[in-house]
Amino acid sequence: MDIPTTKEQLAKLIDHTLLNPSATYADIDKLCREAVEYGFYAVCVNPVHVSRCKRNLRGTEVKVVSVVGFPFGASLPEVKVKEASRTIDEGADEIDFVMNIGALRSGDIAFVRDEMKKMADAIEGRGKISKVIIETGYLTDEEKVKACDLAVEAGIDFVKTSTGYGPRGASVEDVVLIKGVVGDKAKVKAAGGIADADKALKMIRAGASRIGSSHGVQILLSFKREHSGYLSWFSHDS
Amino acid sequence: MDIPTTKEQLAKLIDHTLLNPSATYADIDKLCREAVEYGFYAVCVNPVHVSRCKRNLRGTEVKVVSVVGFPFGASLPEVKVKEASRTIDEGADEIDFVMNIGALRSGDIAFVRDEMKKMADAIEGRGKISKVIIETGYLTDEEKVKACDLAVEAGIDFVKTSTGYGPRGASVEDVVLIKGVVGDKAKVKAAGGIADADKALKMIRAGASRIGSSHGVQILLSFKREHSGYLSWFSHDS
Repeated sequence: MDIPTTKEQLAKLIDHTLLNPSATYADIDKLCREAVEYGFYAVCVNPVHVSRCKRNLRGTEVKVVSVVGFPFGASLPEVKVKEASRTIDEGADEIDFVMNIGALRSGDIAFVRDEMKKMADAIEGRGKISKVIIETGYLTDEEKVKACDLAVEAGIDFVKTSTGYGPRGASVEDVVLIKGVVGDKAKVKAAGGIADADKALKMIRAGASRIGSSHGVQILLSFKREHSGYLSWFSHDS
Repeated sequence: MDIPTTKEQLAKLIDHTLLNPSATYADIDKLCREAVEYGFYAVCVNPVHVSRCKRNLRGTEVKVVSVVGFPFGASLPEVKVKEASRTIDEGADEIDFVMNIGALRSGDIAFVRDEMKKMADAIEGRGKISKVIIETGYLTDEEKVKACDLAVEAGIDFVKTSTGYGPRGASVEDVVLIKGVVGDKAKVKAAGGIADADKALKMIRAGASRIGSSHGVQILLSFKREHSGYLSWFSHDS
């Protein structure tokens, strides 16, 4: 993973996110306008807003990410598969679904394995990108490793740290741990509590390929010359 | 609504609730044992635990309530309908689904009306009880009234105040407001932050017919002689 040395490069690693259930259509439209203006990689929204975002973003490079089974991951697997499929119909390019946390914590590995496989098939089968949110705040390190192993086995594209609605957000330690397990077989999305460029860059240096944040604009506005490192003194790109 | 004057009567108005996504199978089994021991009306759980609860509670009077579209309510209507239907297949007696809060706040009344009607049909059509969670913490009084009007129009059985995962839980003011709108055309379930008998009884006096709480045992243990009112001095029932 190359570390971004310009605001523009950093923006391309950010899913500009609005998942608050009280968000209005106007809030979602603003999110889309900001995503275009700042050049974010994607917007990340709830399923009910996917078609609106797709319409808003037609003709731009900005992708639409939808969460599924969010934020609890405690829906039936068949319902999560249906939600992924319908959300792709609506225009989602990538699906961030929440693992069944209780099943993993109960040691029901067969359940989690089967669900991850079904979700990977449903999403990859449509040519879309899959991300599994493991909600590290609820897990022991051993459980985090197990979840990552299952994600790799299922062929999931990204392991994502957190929903942003659990006990805590992403930590550098979690990103390092996850990246250590998945290696180059999956990518890491760090999300939850990332509100400035310092923290975003720490996550990226730790191994994250994508940042999920509802503070995307603040992250870019807090990006300073010193973040760009030695090279920037020559390229003047920040 | 008769005000309960004994612990046993109060227990029969409580949905004993465990919705934390990290709950293990052992936690769910404990919830079911407590529901039988204390005589709660129902257990209230996430969809993935419904079949386990149904099995645990076979031969008892305790009902199984499942949440749907929980806690954000931002799934596509078709997915919520599917989730309700599959959860009823698994054994749910009652469905507590979350309204599309963002649509109501955006003034998209047609969307909310249509979704409520579809959900009522899917649930009532199977002979089950429907509850719509309007998440009052996000709504103005005018929006609360509108949501209640739509619920009555759709034939929903209960309006439920809160998920317990929103900005705040149930308030006496909300229960009074909701009951004032729905009258005898729907019942009220108060949920969120109700952790003792005092608060539970306040909600019931305000018009609630059902209490949702993850502190059901504490509610009963805090029930005191003075809660039972004048009659209890003769019936010795507390």
